[in-house]
Amino acid sequence: MPAVCILDDFEVHKNEEFLKIAEELKPELITTQVKPVRLLYKENPGEGFSDKKNVKEEEPSLLSGKVLKKDDRVVLDFGDHQVGYVTLDLASTGSHQDAPLYLYLRFAERIEELDSDPAEYNGWISKSWLQQEHIHVDVLPARLELPRRYAFRYMEINVIDVSMKFSLVINDVTLKAVSAVSQDDVEPLAMDDPLLQRIDRVATRTLQNCMQDVFEDGPKRDRRLWLGDLRLQARANYQTFKNYDMAKRCLYLFAGMTFNEGKLAACLFLDPEPEPDDTYLFDYALLFGSALLDYYEETKDEKTLKDLYPVAMRQIEIGLDYLTEDNIVPDHSDEFWCFVDWGDGLNSQAASLAILIYSIRYGIRLAKYMGDTDRIDLLQKKEEELKKSAVEHFWDEEQQMFVSGEERQISWATQIWMILARVFPKEKNRELILRTIEVNPRIRMVTPYMYHHYIDALIRSDEKERALNEMKRYWGEMVHDGADTFWEVYNPYNKYESPYGSVMINSYCHAWSCTPTYFLRKFYEEKK
Amino acid sequence: MPAVCILDDFEVHKNEEFLKIAEELKPELITTQVKPVRLLYKENPGEGFSDKKNVKEEEPSLLSGKVLKKDDRVVLDFGDHQVGYVTLDLASTGSHQDAPLYLYLRFAERIEELDSDPAEYNGWISKSWLQQEHIHVDVLPARLELPRRYAFRYMEINVIDVSMKFSLVINDVTLKAVSAVSQDDVEPLAMDDPLLQRIDRVATRTLQNCMQDVFEDGPKRDRRLWLGDLRLQARANYQTFKNYDMAKRCLYLFAGMTFNEGKLAACLFLDPEPEPDDTYLFDYALLFGSALLDYYEETKDEKTLKDLYPVAMRQIEIGLDYLTEDNIVPDHSDEFWCFVDWGDGLNSQAASLAILIYSIRYGIRLAKYMGDTDRIDLLQKKEEELKKSAVEHFWDEEQQMFVSGEERQISWATQIWMILARVFPKEKNRELILRTIEVNPRIRMVTPYMYHHYIDALIRSDEKERALNEMKRYWGEMVHDGADTFWEVYNPYNKYESPYGSVMINSYCHAWSCTPTYFLRKFYEEKK
Repeated sequence: MPAVCILDDFEVHKNEEFLKIAEELKPELITTQVKPVRLLYKENPGEGFSDKKNVKEEEPSLLSGKVLKKDDRVVLDFGDHQVGYVTLDLASTGSHQDAPLYLYLRFAERIEELDSDPAEYNGWISKSWLQQEHIHVDVLPARLELPRRYAFRYMEINVIDVSMKFSLVINDVTLKAVSAVSQDDVEPLAMDDPLLQRIDRVATRTLQNCMQDVFEDGPKRDRRLWLGDLRLQARANYQTFKNYDMAKRCLYLFAGMTFNEGKLAACLFLDPEPEPDDTYLFDYALLFGSALLDYYEETKDEKTLKDLYPVAMRQIEIGLDYLTEDNIVPDHSDEFWCFVDWGDGLNSQAASLAILIYSIRYGIRLAKYMGDTDRIDLLQKKEEELKKSAVEHFWDEEQQMFVSGEERQISWATQIWMILARVFPKEKNRELILRTIEVNPRIRMVTPYMYHHYIDALIRSDEKERALNEMKRYWGEMVHDGADTFWEVYNPYNKYESPYGSVMINSYCHAWSCTPTYFLRKFYEEKK
Repeated sequence: MPAVCILDDFEVHKNEEFLKIAEELKPELITTQVKPVRLLYKENPGEGFSDKKNVKEEEPSLLSGKVLKKDDRVVLDFGDHQVGYVTLDLASTGSHQDAPLYLYLRFAERIEELDSDPAEYNGWISKSWLQQEHIHVDVLPARLELPRRYAFRYMEINVIDVSMKFSLVINDVTLKAVSAVSQDDVEPLAMDDPLLQRIDRVATRTLQNCMQDVFEDGPKRDRRLWLGDLRLQARANYQTFKNYDMAKRCLYLFAGMTFNEGKLAACLFLDPEPEPDDTYLFDYALLFGSALLDYYEETKDEKTLKDLYPVAMRQIEIGLDYLTEDNIVPDHSDEFWCFVDWGDGLNSQAASLAILIYSIRYGIRLAKYMGDTDRIDLLQKKEEELKKSAVEHFWDEEQQMFVSGEERQISWATQIWMILARVFPKEKNRELILRTIEVNPRIRMVTPYMYHHYIDALIRSDEKERALNEMKRYWGEMVHDGADTFWEVYNPYNKYESPYGSVMINSYCHAWSCTPTYFLRKFYEEKK
């Protein structure tokens, strides 16, 4: 299901003052030199790396002793998920180099990726995201500094060709890892359960590797600042790295580049200079207020609150403008218009209304901090009206669940957002989430982004123990499946699911997946 | 037939004084900006470019108006064979670039090359010589300066991928062509025949494009200084560009890096610093004296003659050391030991002896310039002895031709080198060359290098008119086949011949093919 948004009528309004504030907060990246920790090879070359028994190890010091001919390959394991720049120290042996060296390099976040063939990729997003390079080296010895940034743990070096007279020697491979933050700044999770400790470590690594010039959604692919992802990353960041400048920078970047009637773009580009994408996502724009409130409550930064409050309010106004005469959001589910979750066939009409209600509640809290009493009255009135219309239009009394769209679809996402919108009182919300678990609607959650809201809904419904078990079940299963960082997409019912038509292009370090560290540290860890 | 030489015992002796002289003569390259003169496309995309009727043209100004999506391609024609560095001025259109641009570039000396698939190359020399690049461009607009040098007339740009949201625009493509010499320094050939004019122009272009830091053998592939090629290039250069410094530089480079008992390497590498290849070719080493004599007779440069004379003489001594008790060169025809010509199954034993005799004659001339009377006597004696043994061992009285090897093989190459060695008096040589033409031995000539010696043999046998016709027939046929520069290999009986197992890797601008300009200007053009 290709899903992109292209707006024909797209007029950007830049607020230079906001952009200047954002620019001044641009982080200096911390660099760390990383060396491979082992070499890997297949015991049986005919089988893949996916079969763990087939993966054999060697000391990394053996690399420089290898004499590599045509079609030889080596696989380096850098021990953990890494983001950065690779330098190869190459030389030749045998006679003088009498032809260019021709290399093919691949970078993989998971070892299983090395079993796939990029030439066979036929997904609907660009093949250019596959991390591969064909490189000629005309003169050896050479210090080959690859100019592009890669996200990977495994690096495969394939010798396409040398010549009959010389062979390749790889003296050394070094990674300059980059991030705006350091793991040294985060205390280990103060909980005894080894699985939870591991989940927390993988989560903070995920967040760290996504914290670059901005909060990136994934360092392998996309590499942009998405508004929905920012909100979750910032929450995890406040519990861990506490890099408030980055959260502030990202909020100002969004607010500094609105379009048309003041809408926030769903994502931003940083290069060659900051520009908004011509993508509007109804839910992402509305959630800006939630992200702003989180930031303010962490920092008590009055200036930022005052600067950005009007932008947050404008998103709610725009959201309200979409309402029909019946006080519901029209059904746009055949468009890429309200993200909610990846997942084939999800109808987002009811969730859209729920997210509008949710954003109004956050809007009221912002208005209270601002002392904006008129706005408080107006929003409180709207909140009640919309809760009423949500029940009237989407509650199915017989099934005791919310439905969505003309097809009256029942999905996990709809129930969860209605709970987070607090359409019902707390006890009834609790009943609804338990009922959802029991019924297990066929339209399931597929992204950790949606799972985040599920965990949130459980905790807000006083189901903390169940929330913890669900985290262990979902993120713990990813750990079991070998995650060094958490993945963009993880459907325990279909581990090979991809929203893009091929798992090859999935991102295996994706910011919206890092929130277990937020939940664990905020709601479970004993306060020091 | 893979043919390389790897010497186990290879001890290089550098003469730093000679290398310093060579270094000081390093040319400053002349750069010329070149733009594409037309765009090409196939009328029927299912058919190739090899079918001339299928090739359609567009104005180059149309390039920047094209909106290029995934799998689109453009072919630029730079109007003539070029050597240099390409810069692409790239931009995007549509929405903001949201994925890297992924390009595949190919450079072709002949349009037909674009019909072949480099992935299918399976020759025995390195695939790395195929002029292709896979390039990711993370940020558009971009000025993409390709760091490698290419030799080509046609450049194909393939869009492997953009994204659903943006397309590629190529605003401009520029070539910075490089050479040590300029066509402006060469007078057009003063002969009326348009075909001869064209042959001369293609020859001088070939030479120009091979004159870089040194005389390269071919700017697409190999790119090294080969001794046998140098000798022919220098001859053509004396009649055209008259860049004496380059000839001198190359002679000093060879003499500055001998190995073992003072042997000259068959070729040299310039990067990362000058080094000889561990390849000894019996004929190439012997022909150094001929190249030195040519240089001296052009320049009367006494210092160079004195410096390099001992090196030339040492090659003859080494050659003589190989002689058997029977005063012949042993049969090494199963090795890459005496080049003579490419061509499957050529036995080079008799030609090796002929080349030794030829080099002795040049040695005598050098010795006369040096006033080295003892050497003159010695060499004249040897010359006579060897001519006698050549006839005794290799002349087949019945067939009235020279044979070679145990198999008593009759080849064009053997007859030609025996003629150039002047084993027989002039009239008998003339009879031999005419007889060879008549018999047309099955072991034919395949390289323009060998054809050069054939033309030389005709002219030295007072068959100037026939030599001219043969030039028109051989090099003229290449012109007819679309040559902008003369090719490394051209067998009129098998136009798809390659010594490397695939025509894809053949070089179509090869220095040893440029000598028609030498013959035409030295022996045919009316003196101004």
